[in-house]
Amino acid sequence: MSAVAERLRAAGLRLPEPPSPLGRYVPAVAASGLLFLSGMLPLRDGEPVMSGHLGQELDTAAGREAARVAALNALAVADAETGLDSVTRVVRLAVHIACDPGFRHHAAVADGASEVFDTAFAPTRHSRLVFGSTALPAGMPLELEVVLALGTAPS
Amino acid sequence: MSAVAERLRAAGLRLPEPPSPLGRYVPAVAASGLLFLSGMLPLRDGEPVMSGHLGQELDTAAGREAARVAALNALAVADAETGLDSVTRVVRLAVHIACDPGFRHHAAVADGASEVFDTAFAPTRHSRLVFGSTALPAGMPLELEVVLALGTAPS
Amino acid sequence: MSAVAERLRAAGLRLPEPPSPLGRYVPAVAASGLLFLSGMLPLRDGEPVMSGHLGQELDTAAGREAARVAALNALAVADAETGLDSVTRVVRLAVHIACDPGFRHHAAVADGASEVFDTAFAPTRHSRLVFGSTALPAGMPLELEVVLALGTAPS
Repeated sequence: MSAVAERLRAAGLRLPEPPSPLGRYVPAVAASGLLFLSGMLPLRDGEPVMSGHLGQELDTAAGREAARVAALNALAVADAETGLDSVTRVVRLAVHIACDPGFRHHAAVADGASEVFDTAFAPTRHSRLVFGSTALPAGMPLELEVVLALGTAPS
Repeated sequence: MSAVAERLRAAGLRLPEPPSPLGRYVPAVAASGLLFLSGMLPLRDGEPVMSGHLGQELDTAAGREAARVAALNALAVADAETGLDSVTRVVRLAVHIACDPGFRHHAAVADGASEVFDTAFAPTRHSRLVFGSTALPAGMPLELEVVLALGTAPS
Repeated sequence: MSAVAERLRAAGLRLPEPPSPLGRYVPAVAASGLLFLSGMLPLRDGEPVMSGHLGQELDTAAGREAARVAALNALAVADAETGLDSVTRVVRLAVHIACDPGFRHHAAVADGASEVFDTAFAPTRHSRLVFGSTALPAGMPLELEVVLALGTAPS
């Protein structure tokens, strides 16, 4: 078991099946020592775990959970592509939140994803950006951009 | 003629003149083996081919056409910068769609760009993300983020 | 004093204290010869210099000023991380603007950031993208994505 998988297991987190693309693309592409993931969504077994907008149908706690689900999908995709032992850290995380113009709790929602990556790659942290969106694929409340660094496993 | 140009020609696609920047920036920057393009818009001869929001004035078919026009602009910029023979694949495509909060057809619109890149770089596919935006430059319905991998031409 | 710092000083620009993260992340991560910054906001001394949406409470001139403040924060973060002499250029700038659906002056707002980077890294320019967002962290009107190239200082 990889060091990352071991840390996830110790935290009670389990990798899901990696999600399938929703169109004409692949889950991830490696180039120049980086692994660029496709948009990671709060999907479980191919179905959205929730839909709606933050600040309307969904509250901040729901948004954090969506972020957690999407972050675990990101790790599952990376594991399927290169093996998590080849991933040295998360370089960049951007969190897109479907929300109304009055929404203010971006950081609290995004922390739901950051906590998963903190657990997996402790102690290295990532850079992060958070944006509000009008609407995300299939009405889901959140989508993650994730860029990972590939290298020799620190094991 | 490059292999990419030949595949485009066989599919009946022709590269336009590369679009000019709308402000204080350049069309693309190469760094670390990657070519980062500026935002690619549905411009033709310097004019928007359409304006408006998806789910309002514009339907999904119009959005796909906007995506196709912007993707061809991306290839034209890459050709002008490095020559398409230096481009080995599309690493990452992000599609930003100006849409209202009820819009749901992100994947169908984005496939309009993905089809152009599939034709150009067959059989390698790209990673993809799709987001909804309140408003894009000059009221256009779509903007593409494109990152390409540079390398020796496979010809 | 670095060449970049000297050019900023000659233009009457001064680097602020680098902003602190608003959540579980770090200000920047270096990987593959690139420095990926976290979302740069119009913060000064830890407080937003303004809040609101472009096209509503805020006009284009205010947006340009927000872009200028955020760009100086980006340089301050880069200086603290690697020293500005290690940065050869801005590779990619994406400007996210909180705006209403009728907003059209994306390029004019984004130029506020581009002018700062033009001053710092003259004469090399960057690639650029601009997007409209429903809401950005803490109600601020603008957020920058910045990717820098690291290398030997041209001094």
